[in-house]
Amino acid sequence: MTRKALSNESTFMLDRICIPVADELSGVEGFLGEELVSGIETIDSITRYVVRNGGKRVRPALMLLSARVSGAKSGPRQAAAIEMLHTASLLHDDVVDDAAVRRGLPSARARWGNQVSVLVGDFLLSRASRIFVEEGNQRIMRALSEAIGRTTEGELLEIAHQNDASTDAALYMRIIQGKTAALFDFAARAPAISAGLGTSLEESLGLFGFEVGQAFQLADDALDYVAEESRLGKASGTDLREGKLTYPLIVALERSSAEERASIRDALIAGKATREEFGRIRSIIDLHGGIEATLRLARELAERAKGRLSSFKPSIERDALAMLADYSAERGE
Amino acid sequence: MTRKALSNESTFMLDRICIPVADELSGVEGFLGEELVSGIETIDSITRYVVRNGGKRVRPALMLLSARVSGAKSGPRQAAAIEMLHTASLLHDDVVDDAAVRRGLPSARARWGNQVSVLVGDFLLSRASRIFVEEGNQRIMRALSEAIGRTTEGELLEIAHQNDASTDAALYMRIIQGKTAALFDFAARAPAISAGLGTSLEESLGLFGFEVGQAFQLADDALDYVAEESRLGKASGTDLREGKLTYPLIVALERSSAEERASIRDALIAGKATREEFGRIRSIIDLHGGIEATLRLARELAERAKGRLSSFKPSIERDALAMLADYSAERGE
Repeated sequence: MTRKALSNESTFMLDRICIPVADELSGVEGFLGEELVSGIETIDSITRYVVRNGGKRVRPALMLLSARVSGAKSGPRQAAAIEMLHTASLLHDDVVDDAAVRRGLPSARARWGNQVSVLVGDFLLSRASRIFVEEGNQRIMRALSEAIGRTTEGELLEIAHQNDASTDAALYMRIIQGKTAALFDFAARAPAISAGLGTSLEESLGLFGFEVGQAFQLADDALDYVAEESRLGKASGTDLREGKLTYPLIVALERSSAEERASIRDALIAGKATREEFGRIRSIIDLHGGIEATLRLARELAERAKGRLSSFKPSIERDALAMLADYSAERGE
Repeated sequence: MTRKALSNESTFMLDRICIPVADELSGVEGFLGEELVSGIETIDSITRYVVRNGGKRVRPALMLLSARVSGAKSGPRQAAAIEMLHTASLLHDDVVDDAAVRRGLPSARARWGNQVSVLVGDFLLSRASRIFVEEGNQRIMRALSEAIGRTTEGELLEIAHQNDASTDAALYMRIIQGKTAALFDFAARAPAISAGLGTSLEESLGLFGFEVGQAFQLADDALDYVAEESRLGKASGTDLREGKLTYPLIVALERSSAEERASIRDALIAGKATREEFGRIRSIIDLHGGIEATLRLARELAERAKGRLSSFKPSIERDALAMLADYSAERGE
């Protein structure tokens, strides 16, 4: 699999996915402005910078499409809240990772320090919660608090195993199910709860989101080894440098010789691979098909997710959700 | 006002305040253990360290006493959630302040880094929310999300004015009303909402908490200039070193000569006062009665808070709340 194969037309694909909810997605941008006014000018300009900079709005699109398929009223305001939750977690992640670049621009942490990243993250969290609280649905609040809890637990699990060369596929899946998939799950599930579709359909949409989220993270972790910095919006090789053992490398480790394994372990523990070392690790991953295996698993999860949609009647929104699953497993940006 | 006058019998006072809810406060400790199991061993031991280390449980005591006065069922589980919210904010504050010492022990940040402080804070927040969500009361959820939002806004406001020598008393009050008093407000108000006492009594208890919280923070800020490190549990002079202009210094600035003002400004902007410089600032504060003025305002707020209790019928719990107001304005530890 080459960079070219990964990057094909993914922006175009996302644009097509969003067509049925294009108006509401403009509404999301409006709410991201309106809802995030703290009354403290310096803070508001930071919040605007953080929220407006280049998010692809995948999670809001997921929620809006799920709302259409469910016949729910969840609209741009709730979808904006989902993006706030996601941005909050990015901000707290920036602190965690000591990340210097995010979405191709300096991260909030690098620009304003940990202080601002943590507290603006908290501010976004509180505003997002307020939006869901106002809906007045106890079960949505429960799902929300569970999603936030699981996201955090996934991130904590990842930290607990930083630089841990014994991380295996099962542990990796637990990590991404928390840190990424739990919020996708909530974004797809909340409209079904709101519409009162009943547990079975709720579960179908929730699992759809859960599997799409995992596919999305797997593709992201593949991209971290193949994409150019300009395209991914974060420095490639970041995971390795941060001591995160992700799926491409886990596969390579399983299939490696003792000598290759030692070399990977050293790079992981050192936590600061030079360009040369990164190239060596990259070639070990290529040799053992780590990227292909990762994208194959992403694809399997996307197919499983698409199967969940069969309980819903055909519609352009259902088709868009299916395309979103494909996009998540294949995207090249 | 001397150190001795400040430190008198405050521990004994807090013990007396807690007598009516002593059993439930033991329950709080139990819930702080049970509710905070993530299933990740390394993280759980950190959470235990953070939560168990020396908190005075003032906020849980406030909530439990308010519940008694309201006839609410809010018990140790909710009170534990209040302490989790408080601890979460301390953890995020540790990141913000780059604090090395907290409650006389190394801060979580200093021991495990920013990563853990931020995420364990998020974990505590999510577990606390879950507890209130389970109560299934829409208005409590609204008050909670407002309290968290206001706390964060207060902290952001404080950061926005770090090293800002033009911070005046009005701005300072806005900061502490958010960062400290909003959670006290919620702790006192939630049981009244839960018991369905009606807006007027809810408001009385909420304002009681709000004013006690401000008194508490004022006394804290006075202590930062007078207490020994061992007693306060954080290094004294911390606020000055962190570029925080608090009430004792605001008063001194207002009453200072141009020369004194320049000296205070320099120390504030430098953000790293030596022991000698701190001593000079201390003597300017003493000269202009900054500590007395701070404690006087704390006392006034405590008296106003006690007035709010007159709508409730006399009881040992109401007396304990009044004592809690006094304690907040006077405590010497």
